Amino acid sequence: MTTRIFIGNRRMDAVAPDDRGLAYGDGLFETMRVHRGTVPWWDAHWSRLQRGAQRLRLRLPDAGRVREEAAALFAGDPPAGDGVLKLIVTRGGGTRGYAPTAEVEPTWLLSRHHSPPPAPADGLRVRWCETRLASQPLLAGIKHCNRLEQVLARAECSEAGFDEGLVCDHDGHVVAATGANLFVFREGQWLTPMLDRCGVAGVCRARLLLPLQAREARLDRDAIETADAVFLSNAVRGILPVARLGTRAWPPHPAIAAARAVLARLHPAFALDLEHP
Amino acid sequence: MTTRIFIGNRRMDAVAPDDRGLAYGDGLFETMRVHRGTVPWWDAHWSRLQRGAQRLRLRLPDAGRVREEAAALFAGDPPAGDGVLKLIVTRGGGTRGYAPTAEVEPTWLLSRHHSPPPAPADGLRVRWCETRLASQPLLAGIKHCNRLEQVLARAECSEAGFDEGLVCDHDGHVVAATGANLFVFREGQWLTPMLDRCGVAGVCRARLLLPLQAREARLDRDAIETADAVFLSNAVRGILPVARLGTRAWPPHPAIAAARAVLARLHPAFALDLEHP
Repeated sequence: MTTRIFIGNRRMDAVAPDDRGLAYGDGLFETMRVHRGTVPWWDAHWSRLQRGAQRLRLRLPDAGRVREEAAALFAGDPPAGDGVLKLIVTRGGGTRGYAPTAEVEPTWLLSRHHSPPPAPADGLRVRWCETRLASQPLLAGIKHCNRLEQVLARAECSEAGFDEGLVCDHDGHVVAATGANLFVFREGQWLTPMLDRCGVAGVCRARLLLPLQAREARLDRDAIETADAVFLSNAVRGILPVARLGTRAWPPHPAIAAARAVLARLHPAFALDLEHP
Repeated sequence: MTTRIFIGNRRMDAVAPDDRGLAYGDGLFETMRVHRGTVPWWDAHWSRLQRGAQRLRLRLPDAGRVREEAAALFAGDPPAGDGVLKLIVTRGGGTRGYAPTAEVEPTWLLSRHHSPPPAPADGLRVRWCETRLASQPLLAGIKHCNRLEQVLARAECSEAGFDEGLVCDHDGHVVAATGANLFVFREGQWLTPMLDRCGVAGVCRARLLLPLQAREARLDRDAIETADAVFLSNAVRGILPVARLGTRAWPPHPAIAAARAVLARLHPAFALDLEHP
């Protein structure tokens, strides 16, 4: 991992120990797939970050500066500037106490990571998580740094040897996987859970909604288990077909192949993944 | 602020940029009142930290080492080793992704802060916050680092010039203030909200339950507004009488004076606050 740390426009050696990101998870993040030194979905990631910043009333750093530094982080090095770029923006340093300090400059970190493995050819093994997501419309949809629920849910999957887990809210509505959004194909139609109460509105999900003519809906466990095809999506790994969920198994489905072909036209890294799985 | 940073038993110069505390708020904290270089309620704080660590399945550092370092942080300096000690413990560094990495040593930070001002003699002005707390039994009661709800609620109070704010859950039950627990006196009995769905089970609250013979209950806004006396409690500032809430005003009440006398016997710093307000 290579990281660059900033407060406002100043490059720093380290994160300050009084940073509100560390104290309260008082920040936002984006995880972006990089292709040959560029971030093809940059605008979509930055837009979501802006929506989060408005919701949390948190200042963002200068977009141009962030983009320059991101490019520098991926310049020159093999393998050809591919990989994953993570951006964290926090409310900055502060005195003790929850009250946001006025006029503090945001802290931001850029880090470079290896490309993830492509989606497994035989699909993911997923489970239902015991962990339920709390309903909090004020934080729903945005990619904030309060992620203990996801950490707890993800731990359930790793321990039990599953690739991922699906999580529901306390009313029994399915929300997403721990680190990806969810699409199901039923009666010739793509559906994806509504994210107005909890969950993260993924950039890959947003990109797919229109071309797949997908409809947002409240879905219960049964609607997933009886679907004709299921995939997970995120901006780093693209479309991940689900092969097994409990006792239910899904063979490869042409609707998923079609969705992956759509995605390949939207992001060059996913085109490569499709050609060389 | 003076801070010491550690990973496991090693003193560090800085927090690692891949720390899970910063990425996900994947940690716990305690804020303790220090009196003449000692933490009178140390055992209670450490017990709550242990409960949180069990819930999050997070490793704690060696208790003896933490206590030694805390003592060193307050040794020697005027004014007589009084102040506030904050301890943050995170799950440590990690690769990208929610899955907790096995066998990682925890990161911990100790910081020294000034003593807070004593409770204002004329009581606090508080408001009802618009921000509601999400119900999440997995995280209720423990003092974890996912505090965006408190940050949002606290911001409402500061902007409107209030000292604190009371927050409810989505069912309309009152939970606490943004940074303190709540006690109300009704029909000769102290009551305090149940914290099984959200909120932090404060160390000061726990200390007061038995001597005040306080009962945990589900309380709605009306139960607070029609109470005979109301105070907030936390381990740093002790008992903070509430003077105003919306149009309701409370004059000083003998039951609060009695509660403060109880607290003064439980912690020497609050005895001093009472003698020299």
